Order: sequence, then structure tokens, then C-alpha cells
Amino acid sequence: MSKRIVTISREFGSGGRTVGRMVAEQLGYKFYDRELIQLVANQSGFALEFVEETDEYSTTSSLLYNLSMGGTYAQAGFSPDHLPPVDKIQILQNNIIRELAEKDPCVIVGRSADYILRDRTDCLNVFVHADREIRMRRAVEEYGFPEKNIEKLVAKRDKARASQYRHYTDRIWGMADNYHLTLNSGVFGLEKCCEIIVSLAK
Amino acid sequence: MSKRIVTISREFGSGGRTVGRMVAEQLGYKFYDRELIQLVANQSGFALEFVEETDEYSTTSSLLYNLSMGGTYAQAGFSPDHLPPVDKIQILQNNIIRELAEKDPCVIVGRSADYILRDRTDCLNVFVHADREIRMRRAVEEYGFPEKNIEKLVAKRDKARASQYRHYTDRIWGMADNYHLTLNSGVFGLEKCCEIIVSLAK
Repeated sequence: MSKRIVTISREFGSGGRTVGRMVAEQLGYKFYDRELIQLVANQSGFALEFVEETDEYSTTSSLLYNLSMGGTYAQAGFSPDHLPPVDKIQILQNNIIRELAEKDPCVIVGRSADYILRDRTDCLNVFVHADREIRMRRAVEEYGFPEKNIEKLVAKRDKARASQYRHYTDRIWGMADNYHLTLNSGVFGLEKCCEIIVSLAK
Repeated sequence: MSKRIVTISREFGSGGRTVGRMVAEQLGYKFYDRELIQLVANQSGFALEFVEETDEYSTTSSLLYNLSMGGTYAQAGFSPDHLPPVDKIQILQNNIIRELAEKDPCVIVGRSADYILRDRTDCLNVFVHADREIRMRRAVEEYGFPEKNIEKLVAKRDKARASQYRHYTDRIWGMADNYHLTLNSGVFGLEKCCEIIVSLAK
């Protein structure tokens, strides 16, 4: 069965975002990564910079998050209007992801989309990773981060993504069981990763 | 770079063993799964049944295991002759795996071969998994286990493999980072899994 939606979770510096863009191009799917931040800013009325800051490295309460997953605010007596901004943004983002998945075939990078869309059977959930040395090199050469303290930066990002994912999903970041496919982009290269994902989504 | 050796770790009931056999056939590689048990029995002098019992679900001390990895017994004052049988078997098996990898291109199923051969650059390390429901069904329909208590059996095997892997390797069983590729065989089917592994090994 072909997959209308491809979610790509990725270690920082693994090139997973680039792989996602290539997959979207080859499949003719829409592509959502930082585009999501703009959508959230538009719909929430918060400044883009503020939404950016709360993006993938912040955490809201899992209770609120889980309520948002089931859309059961009202039953629980919560009103989104009275939530702290970080929670509002997170919940809005989840709703936007679910709406986008309903509309057009798409590739979504990050944002625990594998978990948010876990009840759909038309998702291909992918995790892209690479050895830390390779990711450090990519962060400097491709993303333009300064070489000084790059090891610390990568370690910090790894930790933040893992703890955010754990916090919201109660799953362990990077466990094979969470995904249909995981790929070491450092060993295979980005083009080959793209080729495999496309062949499995078709 | 083509991969001379494919290691396949797999969840019980995922069909990983079958995938491994298919990969070996398609690549013209040797195939080692239970064949390893026979080799260990031959070389150790222990009965096949005894080696079988100590196979994938027993644990020896990690200290001894790590000494065996570096071949540093003698320096440490240990003699393999004086080790308990379970340890002897485990260490012999590791040595056999390293020897086999030196000789001919091969597919090795299980036995933490990904870890034992981790310093080689010509290995493709794969993990095959599937949802527990699917694995329970395969265990009954394909492997002939009685339906009664199958859930308990699968859970027990999962736990045993995870703890044996952890014990020997200090890694977490099923983490994507341990492997170059992980595949959900329940979603893709065994033939497709084989196809992808073959295309990446070539």
C-alpha cells in the first residue's frame, strides 16, 4: 500500500531534513519543516521568532499534550485560551500537523509527527541518524555552525530532542520500534536514503 | 562500498531469519544461523543439545566476554580451559564468528554479531522487527508454537534477547544507532526487506 505521508525524524546533523526535501520532490509531495513554524505563527498570532524559540527544544506538560491529542479539552474543563503560550503553540502545531496530513500527500520533518499521526495507516515513519563525528562535520560544513564547541552543541541538541520526544510521547527517541525504517545516512549517503524511502513510500 | 558481511539482528517472530536466508541466496553469500551452533559443538566437544541451550538466551560475565573480545586472557591470567562451560561456549562462538567473517562473504543471524564485528568496515548491520501481534501470529502459524500462552512466550523471548544483548554489549537492544538499517517486516513484508538489504549490500 502506498504511503501518502512520510514523517522524518532525524538526529541533528544527519541530513534528515535534506533527505526529506529530496523525497518530497521525487514523490511530488508537499514538504513541511520550518514551514510549520510559519503556519503556527500565522494561526496563533505569536511572533515568528517566539514560535521558533519554542519549537523542537521546549516541553509542555504531557497531560495537556495528551488532552490535545484527543481533543478533549472541553470535556476536561480546559480552555486553550487560558493555557501558557508554549502549550498553546505545541497544541496548535499538533492540530496543524493532523490537518495537513488530511489534506495533501506530504513529507513532515520532526515535531514528533510519527507519534502525532500514529493512528493513521498511510504514514511511513522514518528515522535518519549518523555517527556523531559525521554529524559534527555536517553541522560545521553544511549548516555553518562555528567549529568551536561543536561537540557540545551536537550533544545538547541530541539530548534536547530525546527528552522532548520522551516527554510528549513516552517513547524512547531512536528506538527502531517507533519507526518503519531507520537509516544511517553517514554510511549510505543522502541520495541512497532518499531512494530507499521513495521506493518504500510508493 | 559493497558489504561482504551482513549481520541480521531480529525480534523473535519478525521473520528476520527468513529474510537473512533470502539475502544470502540472492547475494550468493554463506548463511549462518543455527549452523553456528553445530560449529561450536564440533569445536568445543560439547553436545549439540547443550550448546543449543546456552545459545541466545544465556549470559556469561561481561568481564570474561570483554577479555575474550580482545584476546587478552593470557595477559589477565585467565585460561579458557578453566572457564565454566557457558562462558567457554560464548567465547568460542565469538571467535568462530570473527573467523567466518574473515573467510567468505556471509550473512550471520543473531548472536550479537553486529557488536562482535563492530570494528570491521565491511559489515552491513540490520535489525528486523515487527509489531508484537504480527510476531505472535508468525510464531504460531510459521514456527508451529502452540497458540496458548504465545503472548507470554514472545514477551519472554523479547526480554531475554534484550537483556543478553545489553549484558554483553552494554548497548540497548533495538536502538537505531546500533544498526545501519532497521526494517519493520510486518509493514514491508519479507521480500521487500530482502530487496532493500540486498540493494544496500551491493
